[in-house]
Amino acid sequence: MAIHLDATLMFADRVPDAIALGLWQDAAPRFADAQGIVARRRAHGELGFLDLATESAALDELRRFADGVGQAFSDVVVLGIGGSALGAKLFRGALRPPAWNAMSDEAREYFPRLHVMDNIDPAELAALFDRIELARTLFLVVSKSGSTVETLAQYLVVRERLEQAVGAGYRRHLVFITDPDHGPLREIARAEGIVSMDVPPNVGGRYSALSPVGLLPAALIGVDVAALLEGAAAMREQCAAWTPEESPAAKFALLQWLADSELGLRTHVMMPYVAALREFTPWFAQLWAESLGKQREDGRSAGPTPLAALGVTDQHSQLQLFLDGPRDKTVTFIAVAEHAVDLPIPHAHADQPLLARLGGHSLGTLMDAERRATASALAAHRRPSMTITLDRCDAWHVGGLVLMMELAAIYAGALYGVDPLDQPAVELGKRMAVNELDRKRGG
Amino acid sequence: MAIHLDATLMFADRVPDAIALGLWQDAAPRFADAQGIVARRRAHGELGFLDLATESAALDELRRFADGVGQAFSDVVVLGIGGSALGAKLFRGALRPPAWNAMSDEAREYFPRLHVMDNIDPAELAALFDRIELARTLFLVVSKSGSTVETLAQYLVVRERLEQAVGAGYRRHLVFITDPDHGPLREIARAEGIVSMDVPPNVGGRYSALSPVGLLPAALIGVDVAALLEGAAAMREQCAAWTPEESPAAKFALLQWLADSELGLRTHVMMPYVAALREFTPWFAQLWAESLGKQREDGRSAGPTPLAALGVTDQHSQLQLFLDGPRDKTVTFIAVAEHAVDLPIPHAHADQPLLARLGGHSLGTLMDAERRATASALAAHRRPSMTITLDRCDAWHVGGLVLMMELAAIYAGALYGVDPLDQPAVELGKRMAVNELDRKRGG
Repeated sequence: MAIHLDATLMFADRVPDAIALGLWQDAAPRFADAQGIVARRRAHGELGFLDLATESAALDELRRFADGVGQAFSDVVVLGIGGSALGAKLFRGALRPPAWNAMSDEAREYFPRLHVMDNIDPAELAALFDRIELARTLFLVVSKSGSTVETLAQYLVVRERLEQAVGAGYRRHLVFITDPDHGPLREIARAEGIVSMDVPPNVGGRYSALSPVGLLPAALIGVDVAALLEGAAAMREQCAAWTPEESPAAKFALLQWLADSELGLRTHVMMPYVAALREFTPWFAQLWAESLGKQREDGRSAGPTPLAALGVTDQHSQLQLFLDGPRDKTVTFIAVAEHAVDLPIPHAHADQPLLARLGGHSLGTLMDAERRATASALAAHRRPSMTITLDRCDAWHVGGLVLMMELAAIYAGALYGVDPLDQPAVELGKRMAVNELDRKRGG
Repeated sequence: MAIHLDATLMFADRVPDAIALGLWQDAAPRFADAQGIVARRRAHGELGFLDLATESAALDELRRFADGVGQAFSDVVVLGIGGSALGAKLFRGALRPPAWNAMSDEAREYFPRLHVMDNIDPAELAALFDRIELARTLFLVVSKSGSTVETLAQYLVVRERLEQAVGAGYRRHLVFITDPDHGPLREIARAEGIVSMDVPPNVGGRYSALSPVGLLPAALIGVDVAALLEGAAAMREQCAAWTPEESPAAKFALLQWLADSELGLRTHVMMPYVAALREFTPWFAQLWAESLGKQREDGRSAGPTPLAALGVTDQHSQLQLFLDGPRDKTVTFIAVAEHAVDLPIPHAHADQPLLARLGGHSLGTLMDAERRATASALAAHRRPSMTITLDRCDAWHVGGLVLMMELAAIYAGALYGVDPLDQPAVELGKRMAVNELDRKRGG
């Protein structure tokens, strides 16, 4: 089992005007500085996400809990937004057992359906209420700080409906996932005896997918959460060498930073050729945008723009721009070495040349051929790309991919000269929204 | 009923360093040139999408057909990619009747479920086959050219399965939507007597949402397609004045082009604060990327990068980057004047100050307050934005919005100096993929 990063098409010996080998070698001291920063932060206990993979006692408890409540409910609803929702969506999309692994929540046998409500649009929440039976639904209220206004508003709406539907027992339909000590949700949980799980204080929202924030919803729908953590732990070990050649996280971060700062390739496209990873790209986009998009100490703005795409779908959408538009992008493909399922393309319509050429191949083969053709076309247009290959799209590899990108974001923060753990502008926006509400009431 | 574009926050009198009023006035001659180009192309019959809204005879036929087959099938599957899929997904997400208007395909009473298969990942197609009953499923095979390899490969797989499931009657489970005269699909339809509908020759894939490509799937799930076309026709009339102040399409195009070419704001974020418009943004992204991202006659690359976002969700994801990252973006919000459904936020936990502030408002009010706060925060960070307001998110307004953006893409093409109707690099990629397959076989 392995995750492999092939970056040959990021370099100028293969792609004209891409990263010169000399530039890569000259970046060694800059990278050593970045390593120093990361090592210090880790020593100070700030990178809690690196330790999530080894908390096996907590994992056993979480799985027992999921096995217990999972039998009692037909539906599980996550009330959460941003980092409180994107991990659950990623794991659901990528890992939910095959029969119901697609665009619908309909089929299931032994596990509840999972709904992730990451918006406050009343039409969407009203539609959810039409579809679920409250008496058989469990709500996970997820907020690291416990003070996310959107999540609290959803909670207030849901709490009243639950009370109307099931009376005083409504508390048994709620689980809070929040800071162990602070914030409104923690205080309410204590006061009302609501079951709660902890987000470790040193694990920020967008780095919390492998904490109960992502693991509990995943466990409830039958994802092998132990394998998720094992894959993450293996990636952590793989990156322990801390050299860009051996650590895929370090290599990814350094290449993206060089492409941006030296070549002006400031848009970082993430394009899996694995449909199950549809929800990986929004998770990555949050991690990359919120960790790196900010002002540096010198007052200058930094941060690449992550852009989500999906192969082969977006070959018929965004690819024209990637190939012929301004040369300001890198593209990262994600591939699987082995398709878990493949479908042969039958022979038919022998009189139609194009159909005759397709017959006898398989959909998986076509998909892989298109990915290679797209990488070649980008190279021919002087656009660099790299490819991350997972042996398979399973829990072990997805756990590894998540940890790889989290660690890459920390390295990239050090290289860009920003703090990858804060989000000052978002905090400002939160205050402004509530003030706007108060004004509306004349408060 | 109206669609309103508020662009006050695009200008320097309100947002520092945004578009100066003088620049806007000076652009008049450039815009007049662009108008001339568009008028000539229209006179030459190249802008067929503008005429789709008035083909009422064809519409009646399409609705009768949908009413008939809609009774006979439990599931409808679109096999198509890019422009052949994105319109159907947009209309399904935005307009499917409320009880099943959310993330799932499960609930329905009188209309088939709609699945849009816009990828060739074998895992996804295999999962679909697990969930549908072929004997009760209708497949719409959609390709303007009739030679899209992904769609043809899907068709070959589906055709064999259908034949195995229902025997010689499999043809009754197929509808082709393609060019009226040319291409493999048209030839097969003729040879085998398969029901087919036309994409007019002068309507390209990404401009075909209001042709049978988007209208037939929409009609099959109960969308009011007549209202879609009425809204589009009304927008066409509203833009007939052809002046940037009166035509929202012209104004949108000119502002985006000025922001890009004069201020370097080359990333155009589209961010509805209407969850039902989740699938509008990928449709817009294809339109904008594929129409504008290309080489100009002078060999220089042109084209802004469209970026999909969703309010309020992405306030907790990409907004940090939009506010504090490099100043290279415009943001277009979409709002509704009236929420079709709203949910009050109950009072509870009076001892918790933040929850006390939320109680008594509604989710819709909170959503609108957050949108205004986000626009203000962007303005305070010298980032321009504009807001498109629909009275409601219904078929009439969605039809108008679609036509507004299609027309805007044509204007923008003229301003950027590129042909908004072609996609040369995509055509190249198509050939490369099939060649790659041939090599694999040693062909």
